[in-house]
Amino acid sequence: MKIYHSPASPFVRKVMIVAREVGLADRIELLPAKAGPVDRDATIRAENPLGQVPTFATDDGAVLYDSRVIAEYLDDLGRGGLFGTGAERWRNLTDAALADGLMGAALLARYETFLRPAEFRWPAWTDGQMGKVADALGRLEGEVAGYGARFDIGTIGFVCGLGYLDFRFPDLGWRDAHPKAAAWFAAMGERPSVKATIPV
Amino acid sequence: MKIYHSPASPFVRKVMIVAREVGLADRIELLPAKAGPVDRDATIRAENPLGQVPTFATDDGAVLYDSRVIAEYLDDLGRGGLFGTGAERWRNLTDAALADGLMGAALLARYETFLRPAEFRWPAWTDGQMGKVADALGRLEGEVAGYGARFDIGTIGFVCGLGYLDFRFPDLGWRDAHPKAAAWFAAMGERPSVKATIPV
Repeated sequence: MKIYHSPASPFVRKVMIVAREVGLADRIELLPAKAGPVDRDATIRAENPLGQVPTFATDDGAVLYDSRVIAEYLDDLGRGGLFGTGAERWRNLTDAALADGLMGAALLARYETFLRPAEFRWPAWTDGQMGKVADALGRLEGEVAGYGARFDIGTIGFVCGLGYLDFRFPDLGWRDAHPKAAAWFAAMGERPSVKATIPV
Repeated sequence: MKIYHSPASPFVRKVMIVAREVGLADRIELLPAKAGPVDRDATIRAENPLGQVPTFATDDGAVLYDSRVIAEYLDDLGRGGLFGTGAERWRNLTDAALADGLMGAALLARYETFLRPAEFRWPAWTDGQMGKVADALGRLEGEVAGYGARFDIGTIGFVCGLGYLDFRFPDLGWRDAHPKAAAWFAAMGERPSVKATIPV
């Protein structure tokens, strides 16, 4: 199996944590990639018209994307159990969607404040995206006490989202107003799959 | 069941087509909503920190999002069969991700050229997003001859994506370079679930 990979992408990180947790990481070849929304990667685009990481190829040569699809494929192929069944599955998937929304909003804010030329930046856009991030953090802070030993596609997503905030928004100081989420994130950080995938 | 709904959203449309196809549409109450990325909807945010449509509530009061999760929940609860199993499922989900990517890119291009004040617009950003749309259209044109009678979460996504291009980018003229996709889209448009959900 192969994956177009970037060590900075929180969506790639989610897939790589899943790969490690289900026992498949050493069967996946990492293909370095530099995907961007303006300078679009021609190599990835030939496989995936969206030109995004992660893009994945199975041993049969089928190309799968995006991160949600790859994560579920790996869970199904490997040890599994990260998605759950019944009501637990819908909860996990909704948490995963919230985490993806947090990461997507943070990524758009990053593009706005880093990639876009300064004269074309619109503060209200960044505020809207970071408002999503703030609302998602607030939800996490309110619910994290009930997570117990949960380690599933939803909580993996939150780990990737919080890790991305630390990586790209080190001055945000999200821990100040979210001490429970901060303690939970620190505990999750002890897990080998999380430790091995810290963004660089 | 309830759904925060906008008749303009291609992601809402996807869910509503699924609801009709699996026989659940008349059990879902539509809650009108005006979600936006800058003026964020406070009512939706209270349920879903992302403040987006579609946001859905089950009869048990569980709140589910985003469109992928709701679509799969409805498929599971109703007549089902729109996701498939085995290799077909991964193909359908990847096509659905491609369609979501097309819709997301078109939505970002729309925000850039419609919502954002003119002085803050960055043409390279719009080009990048519409490049994604063009690449996705090219893939569809190349593969649509093999779709046969497919009507699943992947092809539903393409219907919603093409319908959104007609709705918001009427001058794009995507049919000119994609005659096979255009013929396929016209045939899909005869389906009652598709006809009943044309964006307005």
